[in-house]
Amino acid sequence: MSKPRTVTAAVLLIGDEILSGRTQDRNLGYIADYLAKIGVDVREARVVPDVEDEIVAGVNALRARYDYLVTTGGIGPTHDDITADAVGRAFGVPVGEDPRAIAIMLERYAPSDLTPARRRMARIPSGADLIENPISRAPGFRIGNVFVLAGVPAVMQAMLDFAAKGMETGAVMLVETIAAGSLPEGLYGDPLSAIAAAHPNVAIGSYPSFKDGRFMNQIVVRGKDGEAVAAARRAVEAMVAELSRDATAR
Amino acid sequence: MSKPRTVTAAVLLIGDEILSGRTQDRNLGYIADYLAKIGVDVREARVVPDVEDEIVAGVNALRARYDYLVTTGGIGPTHDDITADAVGRAFGVPVGEDPRAIAIMLERYAPSDLTPARRRMARIPSGADLIENPISRAPGFRIGNVFVLAGVPAVMQAMLDFAAKGMETGAVMLVETIAAGSLPEGLYGDPLSAIAAAHPNVAIGSYPSFKDGRFMNQIVVRGKDGEAVAAARRAVEAMVAELSRDATAR
Repeated sequence: MSKPRTVTAAVLLIGDEILSGRTQDRNLGYIADYLAKIGVDVREARVVPDVEDEIVAGVNALRARYDYLVTTGGIGPTHDDITADAVGRAFGVPVGEDPRAIAIMLERYAPSDLTPARRRMARIPSGADLIENPISRAPGFRIGNVFVLAGVPAVMQAMLDFAAKGMETGAVMLVETIAAGSLPEGLYGDPLSAIAAAHPNVAIGSYPSFKDGRFMNQIVVRGKDGEAVAAARRAVEAMVAELSRDATAR
Repeated sequence: MSKPRTVTAAVLLIGDEILSGRTQDRNLGYIADYLAKIGVDVREARVVPDVEDEIVAGVNALRARYDYLVTTGGIGPTHDDITADAVGRAFGVPVGEDPRAIAIMLERYAPSDLTPARRRMARIPSGADLIENPISRAPGFRIGNVFVLAGVPAVMQAMLDFAAKGMETGAVMLVETIAAGSLPEGLYGDPLSAIAAAHPNVAIGSYPSFKDGRFMNQIVVRGKDGEAVAAARRAVEAMVAELSRDATAR
């Protein structure tokens, strides 16, 4: 069997509102889950404010390091929407009003309603391809390996459906979740570590949550080789069963 | 009036589960909101996986750039909890079992229940101060300007209460939100841009949300000078009132 190809991505969330606590981001989780399911592994995410230098630095750091970069936010009609200009600067290309984008927006707006603010949404870096926006028409765009999407979740999600068609994909990450219930992490940490060492082709994580005064734990096995994931899962399940018996017997 | 002092921070979220889409992060928004209210401005956030090199790079990039860095995740008892070792490496100091941490944990666990896995939670970089954990005892820690907190939200929040006492704080960001309702961003984008230009001591953002097939917008004015924020707020309110009259008259 050939080694499954790995395709990587990063996410750059752009917007003061996420860093001020005003807006609880819902885009990163959506994008991470979506891309994982099509075989693109999100490896890093960053959140930057509406400051051009910060956006440029984030775009250039992440696009160089991963196969793809997905950005959200900053492509609307107001003065704080500066993503297109920042991405143009990151790529060293001019940014101007794109006739294709104007044509799309004229399907929604009468020419007299195409205010200067709305025309801002047609500013696209030179050489970019447009990303369709079935919700409010003003498009996102792709330049090189960077996909520039809206920040409003409903619009971002529609754009991601379109953008994902343009991505090469790798082997899908297989994920198995084993409930450890109230079995304490501190009791299974040592045997789980041994299982992790014995199954180097998977990643094993332990995830506690705390509710109503007690911890409930889940153990997650992730990997791209189905047999390796299944073997690790069986080992974890056997460990949980054994420790649960011990706990009951005490 | 002296210029209000600005204190900055970054947040580093550590954990595969956030990048895989398994876990919807709730810590960034909480920390950003909490710190904003005490006069610490969160300027950047990053999410990295449970990979030591990535954690070290994130810690070093962010602690150098901001007054404080708050990390979440990776300080539990399982093999994937590697934050203490990574932070120690970032600071170039050894990491070992801390007798203070062991003493705290012995208040909860009988000596025979202090498994090797649980003792992992007492691994603290040399020179760090402990951060109290009233929920499950195993402490976080502070080293230099870096605060290392748990990933489980309830535990993180309790640790943040303790950690924040050790932070110097600056002027609190004042935030005024003006409802623009269904007034389109494309209609107010141009006058809002003029207001933003005329009020350089505040940051003005426009935030659409999309629900039940329509956009609803809010305009947010942020700044540290109360008079400047109030003046910008009045200008935005007058603009919204005027455009709303125009829209009704049409």
